[in-house]
Amino acid sequence: MAEPTPHARVDLDAVERNIERLQAYCDRHGLACRPHVKTHKLPAIAHAQMRAGAVGITCQKLGEAEVMVAAGLRDVLIAYPIVGAANLARLAALARSARISVAVDSAAVAEPLAEALAAAGLELDVLVEIDAGLGRTGVRDAAAARELALALERLGGVRFAGLLVYPTPADPALLGAARDAIAAVGVAVPRVSGGGTEGAWRTHELGLVDELRAGTYALGDRACLANGANTLEDCALRVRSTVVSCPEPGVAVLDAGSKALTTDPVEASGPGVGSEQVAGHGLVVERPRARVAVLYEEHARLELDPGEPGLAVGDTVDIVPNHACGAINLHDRVVVHRSGAPVGIWPVAARGAIA
Amino acid sequence: MAEPTPHARVDLDAVERNIERLQAYCDRHGLACRPHVKTHKLPAIAHAQMRAGAVGITCQKLGEAEVMVAAGLRDVLIAYPIVGAANLARLAALARSARISVAVDSAAVAEPLAEALAAAGLELDVLVEIDAGLGRTGVRDAAAARELALALERLGGVRFAGLLVYPTPADPALLGAARDAIAAVGVAVPRVSGGGTEGAWRTHELGLVDELRAGTYALGDRACLANGANTLEDCALRVRSTVVSCPEPGVAVLDAGSKALTTDPVEASGPGVGSEQVAGHGLVVERPRARVAVLYEEHARLELDPGEPGLAVGDTVDIVPNHACGAINLHDRVVVHRSGAPVGIWPVAARGAIA
Repeated sequence: MAEPTPHARVDLDAVERNIERLQAYCDRHGLACRPHVKTHKLPAIAHAQMRAGAVGITCQKLGEAEVMVAAGLRDVLIAYPIVGAANLARLAALARSARISVAVDSAAVAEPLAEALAAAGLELDVLVEIDAGLGRTGVRDAAAARELALALERLGGVRFAGLLVYPTPADPALLGAARDAIAAVGVAVPRVSGGGTEGAWRTHELGLVDELRAGTYALGDRACLANGANTLEDCALRVRSTVVSCPEPGVAVLDAGSKALTTDPVEASGPGVGSEQVAGHGLVVERPRARVAVLYEEHARLELDPGEPGLAVGDTVDIVPNHACGAINLHDRVVVHRSGAPVGIWPVAARGAIA
Repeated sequence: MAEPTPHARVDLDAVERNIERLQAYCDRHGLACRPHVKTHKLPAIAHAQMRAGAVGITCQKLGEAEVMVAAGLRDVLIAYPIVGAANLARLAALARSARISVAVDSAAVAEPLAEALAAAGLELDVLVEIDAGLGRTGVRDAAAARELALALERLGGVRFAGLLVYPTPADPALLGAARDAIAAVGVAVPRVSGGGTEGAWRTHELGLVDELRAGTYALGDRACLANGANTLEDCALRVRSTVVSCPEPGVAVLDAGSKALTTDPVEASGPGVGSEQVAGHGLVVERPRARVAVLYEEHARLELDPGEPGLAVGDTVDIVPNHACGAINLHDRVVVHRSGAPVGIWPVAARGAIA
């Protein structure tokens, strides 16, 4: 019997092609590949990334890292400031089982971190985060980066391990200035770690970033279709959905809503990205000109294109979500296949993890 | 040691006040109360709603209903068209353990449903859904409602049990016309079931709806604050978050992002709802004039108000999410307390359920 809908499906053949392609790019340009697993949250895919040649993985929170270490991953960068006694205790515990590194952007984060790690008899690699212009975490000038690197050199429990930025900026001026300011005081900058799928393929052009943390490339999504980072064939994650109502001509209501797809938007990005590519809540593979116009929690209102065939109650379609990382985070399990042939049903092991 | 952040917290005292208030309203006006559990997904709260006097509960999908029946709930309306052989088999199985009713809006849904139930030797209550103007499921005219009611009367496996609408419409013309058209052909309309928290307290004014399916009232959220359906004290669900960076004056970065809060917006709704009440991604209880301006997956950029105290790395705040139903669906567990005193950590049992 067919799987009930809505459910998330992952095409492992497509995932492996995506992994091999990015790894080949990294190998060609001498970049370390450290995939971000927040996108897929699946240990088996993290292991596939390691087998392909990754130097380690990236997580966005402790909970993800705990799941990945429990699944046998051994080198994990948590690209996030770890704050608070509870989380510092978890970090120290985790660092006994695997090579863990973290990022900081202030002394207010670095000092308690160093103290907790030193007290546990540990010494971890710590990267200084540089703001890429997003206005979230990251230091804003080269002098602040230098001071933080010097502080890490001075403190016990931590080793200054380089710079980290998200996304890899088109204008690397601040990143380069930070590296130079640190080198100028005699401190080595072991690595410069950049991130993001959208700009991944141009990382080598900067001549500055030597580690690439991309996440979405493994699954692909509609945002990456819009910005040109993947093709439809690369979109390995799709949400299968059933038509449950045809309330008026030209409209089909699907059983995949915001609890299967998220309300995450596609941000307009890059030249040639028109409103058609960013409006709506996903791409219906079988009706690419239809628009997922409105999401409710368990319904999508699909507005059909008159040039495409209609849909009837009971028909199923596959939807490429706007944002793979958000969508898979809603699903406890994914139906895994190889270009249609079943592989199994996998728990999304690192979803729902706290902190 | 404090719970790591971000995590979701539910104030059980507030929940119980919310439940008692709506039940008292229903009792006062002779309305059957059938709370929608998609908001909280917690069996213990569903049982509290039943103890307070609810006639049964409402679910939005089979998976939710399966969890609730497994937790001892005995009367469940699935306010959704059940489509496809896999889901019809699950429905028939579920109906052996509890009193299950469902909604339909077309013969294309009703006929396979009736056939599957009759084949299983069952007869279920089925409501005809009327479109309230949302443009998703629901019949659009009284004649269609009448024909569908007559079809349900004719078919085996199903009993016509009344009308269902979401939300309860301010203009009940279609709902009343549908009821009258069905009564005019000699078919009783046992109940008229309305829904939604926003208009809940005016249900009695219609003199037409005799069952109320409200969901969000139990937890409250920022959307209900904006439309006046609850006060801040009623907001029982909050996401506790820690400041992880203060990258510039007037900005604090929190560790609760779209994977803790959702990107669900607050829709502008009702008179007197200004842009201040709908912009942003949540209400920070300790800094009510600050704006949760941007969400990333694990970061929120909080823009502080110059008239309120600042925040430092390590400070914690509680955030009322824009949309309780979406937010709790992201969390595997909730920290439950009574106005601050711990009760326990409960699994969000019905989250992630397929279909």
